[in-house]
Parts: sequence; structure tokens; C-alpha cells
Amino acid sequence: MASTDKPTDPEFTSSSTPLAPEGTDDYFIFDVILRFLLFAASVVAVVVMVTSNETEIVLFQGIPVPQPAKFRYSPAFIYFVAAFSVSGLYSIITTLASLSVIRKPHLKTKFLLHFIFWDVLILGIIASATGTAGGVAYVGLKGNKHTNWAKICSTYDKFCKHTGGSIAVALFGSIVTVLLIWLSAYAIHRRIPK
Amino acid sequence: MASTDKPTDPEFTSSSTPLAPEGTDDYFIFDVILRFLLFAASVVAVVVMVTSNETEIVLFQGIPVPQPAKFRYSPAFIYFVAAFSVSGLYSIITTLASLSVIRKPHLKTKFLLHFIFWDVLILGIIASATGTAGGVAYVGLKGNKHTNWAKICSTYDKFCKHTGGSIAVALFGSIVTVLLIWLSAYAIHRRIPK
Repeated sequence: MASTDKPTDPEFTSSSTPLAPEGTDDYFIFDVILRFLLFAASVVAVVVMVTSNETEIVLFQGIPVPQPAKFRYSPAFIYFVAAFSVSGLYSIITTLASLSVIRKPHLKTKFLLHFIFWDVLILGIIASATGTAGGVAYVGLKGNKHTNWAKICSTYDKFCKHTGGSIAVALFGSIVTVLLIWLSAYAIHRRIPK
Repeated sequence: MASTDKPTDPEFTSSSTPLAPEGTDDYFIFDVILRFLLFAASVVAVVVMVTSNETEIVLFQGIPVPQPAKFRYSPAFIYFVAAFSVSGLYSIITTLASLSVIRKPHLKTKFLLHFIFWDVLILGIIASATGTAGGVAYVGLKGNKHTNWAKICSTYDKFCKHTGGSIAVALFGSIVTVLLIWLSAYAIHRRIPK
């Protein structure tokens, strides 16, 4: 009799699946993976940007002169490298913090709150840095006829490929940071009793 | 006897001060104020940017011609106006949502989580837009001798003042969005029982 009652009792079937408010271990594994992705994206963005140096022979008053293109000629790209160096360092520290807290459930809520606070700051920094570098790189790619800013990507092919690739990886890093904040917010939300 | 026991009982004294996990009304008032600030910043940023049009007489091959400067000549400024139009609209909707939820405590936790999700997206959009416009405006202000991009702020005084003011207000809006996410995260965190 009792076995035939089970399927008709919705309370019983729902309680057989564990609700587990402490089951945020899965969350911390995703957190570590995403933080490692942010670290990888930051390192790739910085390395690709820093190695974008290119020297081309340009005609200057009829005389061919070697003219280099370097990321540090533009304050926008310097800000970009600085921002992603910070986010790379930050992601190492928080990956270790996230790994260390997996075995300590009583610390998790506090860590989640701190992660959100700092991740939001890092998101603001790297999203604005991606935008700044992207804005200047777009001028370099397309030029601007209204202000007579000539496009430079027709001359500096390798420089523009590196810059573009670096900004694309940076955009990926920003998206990963958004996912990190979403994950932390969801994990905190799960710990509130219904 | 019972009255003298009270101060020595830590359980009793702590329970006499209300812990009030439902006491997030204060939070929602701050939330409404910050969302209104974001709305004001978005409107000011868009209006100041859109009204930056300026026409100057420029010598072109020795002949003086009127040369206008408009925000829509630069894709960076178009993105800036689009992003802050979105954040302005978003802040109206969420201000109304935040006001509507003040009287409904049972909905608050759900709203807090949704607010964090969307606020993070808006932060990513407006921080990158501020960066993009800032990067291009900086080139307009200082020029770049390596790429032969001439500064334009020596010619277009009003245009540059409007652009700079708009970006400053936009930066304030981004900071307000960071504070909004911090506030939501803290309010969710407060609802977890110790």
C-alpha cells in the first residue's frame, strides 16, 4: 500500500531530492574554472598587446625612414596593459582564495560577498580598458575623415592584428568576469532559506 | 530575581535587539536614490553629448570654409550615446520596480538577485562606453604625434568641453552602478541567517 502511495504524494517525491543549502561545492569548482579563464585571458591580452611592435619603412618628405609602431605610443593601450596586468594578478589571488575555501564551508558566505565586491571593481576597470583600447584601435583601423585622422592599419599590418586580437581576448575576459559575478550572486541567493 | 538575571544572559540581551532579516526597507530607499542618480547621470551625459555641435571656420587649401564638429562623426561617441540611452531607460524601469517592491517583503530577495544580474550587464555596457568615448576624446585633446593624428580641441573649444563634461558625468554614472551592485549584494547577504 505504502509503495503505491508514493507517486501520488508530491511532498514525498520532492523531499527525496536533496535541497542542500550547503551544496555550494559545485559552485566553487565553476568559480575556480572561471577565475582561471580570466587569468588566461588577462595574460594573453597583455602578452599579445606588448608583442605588437612593428617597424615599417615610411616615406617622410620623400625620404624612406624606418617608423616603428608600439603599444606604448598610445595612452589608451598603456591603460589597457595596466588594467589587464591588475586583473591577471587579481585572478591568481582569487583563484587561490577560491581553492582554499572549498574545504571550509563556514567561510563560504563571507568569501562570496567579498568576491562580488572586488569582481565588480575589476569588471569596471577591464570593461573600460577594453572600450578605451577598442575606441582608439577603431580609429587606427578606419581612420576619421572629419578630423583628418589617417588609418594606420594599411601600413602596420602585424601591429593591428595583435591589437585586434588582444582586444577580442579582453572582451572574452570581461564576459568571464560578468559570469563570475552572476555565479557569486546566485550562490549567495541559494543560501537564503525559502 | 528575573529582572537581575536579564543582563547576565547573553542570549536574552542579543535577542532583545531586533535582528530583522526583513529590515531591508532602508536598503530599498538607498536603492531608489542611487537608481535615480543613475537616471540623472545618463540623461545629462546623453544631452550634453548630443548638444555638442559646433561649427568653426577652418582654412582648407587657403580658403576659409565652415567645418562642423558633431558627436555622430565618431562611432565611439555614437556608442556612448546609445549605451547611456539604454542605461537611462533601464534606470527608469528599475526605479519603478524598486519603488513597487518596498511594500512587498516576500518579493525582495528575488528582486535583489534580478537587480544584480541586470546591473552587472549595464555596468559592463556603460563602463566600456565611457572608456571608448574617453579614449577617442583623449586623442582629440592631445593628438598623437606618432600616428600624425592632430588635436582638434584647439579648434573646437565648445565641442571638447561638452564631450569632456559628458564623459565625467558618465564616469559618475558608472560609479553609481558599482555602488548599486554592492548594495544589492550586501542586502542579499544580510538575509542569510548566521
